[in-house]
Amino acid sequence: MQYLGTAYHGWQIQPDQPTVQGCLETALSSLAGERIRVTGAGRTDAGVHARGQVASCRMVSKIPCLGILRGTNHFLPEDIRVVSVEEAPEGFHARHHALRKDYAYRLSQAPVLSPFLSATVESIRGKLDLSRMQSAAAHFLGKHDFTAFCGSEGRRKNAVRTVVDSRFGSEPDEVVVFRISADGFLQYLVRTIVGTLIEVGRGRIEAQAIPEILDARDRTRAGPTASAKGLTLEKVHFPAGM
Amino acid sequence: MQYLGTAYHGWQIQPDQPTVQGCLETALSSLAGERIRVTGAGRTDAGVHARGQVASCRMVSKIPCLGILRGTNHFLPEDIRVVSVEEAPEGFHARHHALRKDYAYRLSQAPVLSPFLSATVESIRGKLDLSRMQSAAAHFLGKHDFTAFCGSEGRRKNAVRTVVDSRFGSEPDEVVVFRISADGFLQYLVRTIVGTLIEVGRGRIEAQAIPEILDARDRTRAGPTASAKGLTLEKVHFPAGM
Repeated sequence: MQYLGTAYHGWQIQPDQPTVQGCLETALSSLAGERIRVTGAGRTDAGVHARGQVASCRMVSKIPCLGILRGTNHFLPEDIRVVSVEEAPEGFHARHHALRKDYAYRLSQAPVLSPFLSATVESIRGKLDLSRMQSAAAHFLGKHDFTAFCGSEGRRKNAVRTVVDSRFGSEPDEVVVFRISADGFLQYLVRTIVGTLIEVGRGRIEAQAIPEILDARDRTRAGPTASAKGLTLEKVHFPAGM
Repeated sequence: MQYLGTAYHGWQIQPDQPTVQGCLETALSSLAGERIRVTGAGRTDAGVHARGQVASCRMVSKIPCLGILRGTNHFLPEDIRVVSVEEAPEGFHARHHALRKDYAYRLSQAPVLSPFLSATVESIRGKLDLSRMQSAAAHFLGKHDFTAFCGSEGRRKNAVRTVVDSRFGSEPDEVVVFRISADGFLQYLVRTIVGTLIEVGRGRIEAQAIPEILDARDRTRAGPTASAKGLTLEKVHFPAGM
């Protein structure tokens, strides 16, 4: 699935709020004529986008995959699209079976952010030292306890995750993209890492302080949580054959 | 200026409707503390976007260009941005002095259009023969009477225009872009040309029929008017020194 998260209170269904899961369940249920519940691989927060979300569901109705694809999109708003539908192996669960997820956070230092980018790119005021940010980003690679970098929901649980990619790159129109890939994510994890990396870029936190901040497991040592609109769930990886 | 036209009833100011000109005049007037009227180089229709609109105005207040840039953007909604401000030569008029304008029309034949593209790319159902469309596009090059390809407003006036570029290209994510450049445009001109080229791509109009359709000066011979959302005013060209 792909969606622009701007208009939604995140993935997870909530009463009286538009959510991506809510829209998808309504669309699938309307199509199939039965109550469909879906599970998303990543529970993106309010305002976060997706280019590669994966959701699983059980359906009693025998509808061909192409029919589900077309029919569901017919019932979905234009800012949420199902881009492909496949029959999964028995027992497949989009969250439990996800091996790894890739997120991207896009930011721009342009003095004026183009309206063609502003839905998905965060505008950053002032000069950032990208080479310092790149050095700091590398400190997140490997297995760490991310208690210092997540919201209160994450801090109540085991916050150990393994990061296999964490680096800055560039895209057209002078967009800077931070890519991070891990076996799992915690609430606000990417946004707190990005908020901290921006502080590094501004010279307020030293790149080499990242390991200490991780070790301290104290949220107050990390930077602020970056806004949601720059964040996109890019891809979810599953074992071969799933 | 750049803007996403989705939320606006076009460039030209109208009572009780949100328009780009209206927003810009309100923003400039608020900033300068005087009543500012602006002239746009291209009067884009409802839903049409711009990456390179140019507008001129007179201002009594002495505000530096950088102050106008920042101040105006402060008062503008996020989907309209002034990207640069310059002092113009005495008597400069954004519409009268424009030598040439470039428009682009973006379309996609993808079975599912990405929500990241849907604001600015039109989705076309069915297979299009792009090589036939490319041949047909070349017939618009040169000086022609475009009476057959414009709205009723254009047909009441001299409809002779000189087209210096008219061809298809491609962009990332399988987007097809039709680029057209001319010394002037008429109401619905690009959209009627695109609607006709889509008919050519579907085999309903022959590429070599374009010269006859132009000569007939009969709107009913051309194809339907393509939707606004695929159209963007890309650039306005002025004489050197302006």
